[in-house]
Amino acid sequence: MKTLEVNLPHRSYPIHIGNGLLNDASLLRPHIAGTQVMIISNTVVAPLYLQRVQAAVREFDTHSLVLPDGESHKNLATLETIFDAMLTVPCDRTTTVLALGGGVIGDICGFAAACYQRGVPLIQLPTTLLAQVDSSVGGKTAVNHPKGKNMIGAFYQPQAVIADTSTLDTLPDRELKAGLAEVIKYGLIRDQEFFAWLEGNLPLLLTRDPDALAYAIERSCRNKAEVVVADERETGIRALLNLGHTFGHAIETATGYSEWLHGEAVAVGMIMAARLSQALGHLTADDYQRIFGLIEAAGLPTKPPALSPQQYLDLMAVDKKVARGILRLV
Amino acid sequence: MKTLEVNLPHRSYPIHIGNGLLNDASLLRPHIAGTQVMIISNTVVAPLYLQRVQAAVREFDTHSLVLPDGESHKNLATLETIFDAMLTVPCDRTTTVLALGGGVIGDICGFAAACYQRGVPLIQLPTTLLAQVDSSVGGKTAVNHPKGKNMIGAFYQPQAVIADTSTLDTLPDRELKAGLAEVIKYGLIRDQEFFAWLEGNLPLLLTRDPDALAYAIERSCRNKAEVVVADERETGIRALLNLGHTFGHAIETATGYSEWLHGEAVAVGMIMAARLSQALGHLTADDYQRIFGLIEAAGLPTKPPALSPQQYLDLMAVDKKVARGILRLV
Repeated sequence: MKTLEVNLPHRSYPIHIGNGLLNDASLLRPHIAGTQVMIISNTVVAPLYLQRVQAAVREFDTHSLVLPDGESHKNLATLETIFDAMLTVPCDRTTTVLALGGGVIGDICGFAAACYQRGVPLIQLPTTLLAQVDSSVGGKTAVNHPKGKNMIGAFYQPQAVIADTSTLDTLPDRELKAGLAEVIKYGLIRDQEFFAWLEGNLPLLLTRDPDALAYAIERSCRNKAEVVVADERETGIRALLNLGHTFGHAIETATGYSEWLHGEAVAVGMIMAARLSQALGHLTADDYQRIFGLIEAAGLPTKPPALSPQQYLDLMAVDKKVARGILRLV
Repeated sequence: MKTLEVNLPHRSYPIHIGNGLLNDASLLRPHIAGTQVMIISNTVVAPLYLQRVQAAVREFDTHSLVLPDGESHKNLATLETIFDAMLTVPCDRTTTVLALGGGVIGDICGFAAACYQRGVPLIQLPTTLLAQVDSSVGGKTAVNHPKGKNMIGAFYQPQAVIADTSTLDTLPDRELKAGLAEVIKYGLIRDQEFFAWLEGNLPLLLTRDPDALAYAIERSCRNKAEVVVADERETGIRALLNLGHTFGHAIETATGYSEWLHGEAVAVGMIMAARLSQALGHLTADDYQRIFGLIEAAGLPTKPPALSPQQYLDLMAVDKKVARGILRLV
């Protein structure tokens, strides 16, 4: 097991990465302050891993909630389902929420934990590559609105992130590739050496070599943690993490959060950003080709859906990266 | 005009109290960072004061939204109405929300500002006595759930609180008295001298003597600010501010947030708490009589509605002040 610390100004928390960690009560216990635990998962992940987590926290008063799966359910209606369930128990202000699932579960449970009685403790148990390398770390939580992705949310840091790499064994190929989009992003924005490593080791990642995956997850989390520590509230360099996300969010919103996986939209978004960057003279043709090549080799989509330029501009106009009427692109 | 500073560990903000402040652009301008302003009010307050505020911020790109009035609308559905309106503009991450109204408007707009794109700046413009002495100060924001009052919310501090005492001229008597409940609370929990002053000056407050009201508002805000600065997140002494609120919230929830004003429920709640305290030997019969007498003299209700003891216990069991299964009462 590897452990990274996210050292925020007011509080720090660990990211544990390793094989079989979901069974490990000793990792969970130190982060559960009260007597009550609410595990929230979805219909795909719960049949695979809920019992394992329930067993690990059986000494507590444990409740669970299984939500429908998919980005199209990351909305205020599902949030209300969570509040209803927690008030029916009833959960109090010391109840710890365990978010067991991918990025959607992490984002919505994180936001629910941030709001329930003005904030209860949260532990992230990411079970997809995308959640393990990106969304479970850093405290961004949100739900979508029909008019825009992640428009309603909070900055809310977990007590701990526990990434059990064995959960990737059951991850569909399409989801694995979607996660690689965010891994590639770290190489692009701040870690050239890692980008080169990815160019060499992509076949190992695609065949789920455990050591290669563990290395990629740890290095991605380290990159993310460094950026988050430097700029928790995204007033500056944290915006780098949004590479590809402005185009990507527009694609997800335009397609109703149901056709594209987040990582797929980000992959195309990075290609669009790179093309724009090349057109503006900030990127050489060779570098553009390396970026395109790695994303293509990862089996990720490289062509945006057929939206008109006006549709893109309208959708990007409500993006959170707009400030004072000016769209800022990485 | 009087100005108090709320000196929080990471940020401080002013509370301005005085006559005619809503017209004063020079008070608002320093707290509006972006170019866009969203004024949110309700159907009762907007006809009286919205134009005045619009005029004061006319140099900005100003939008407004008028919500239905009353505690029964302080819920997730109304919150969604706010998000829809802000995304339709569209408002960005630098838009300042101006909450123009009483406690309900302040609480729901505060929570909307906390969540919209993970947080936009907020200015509180309280127009009721209750909001001016209590709810606009201290950063507690929330909406109600059918199962419990203020169950979903955030700690979110405003950029400034601007309390225009002239708005109290149009306040119905019932609302004025409801505000006095929270004023009396400060006397009870930490300011004996103020309690004695209230016993002597209540007739002046009930006839809306401007000097007496201004004094009571300022002294109440000073008390509240001191408590909030000492314990922003209610891990300790801030809980004192909940005197009467556990019983009060149970009454409000049981009656569907529609029959009792918050201050009225708190008034009865303080009497119930005082009676319990006397029964437990913490309060003399004389002190109980002084508390009962002042609340009665303020024209506030002194008798709880007919709920069974089991109803109270069930409702109080989901109160936020429950921790580890134990109900904590002030």
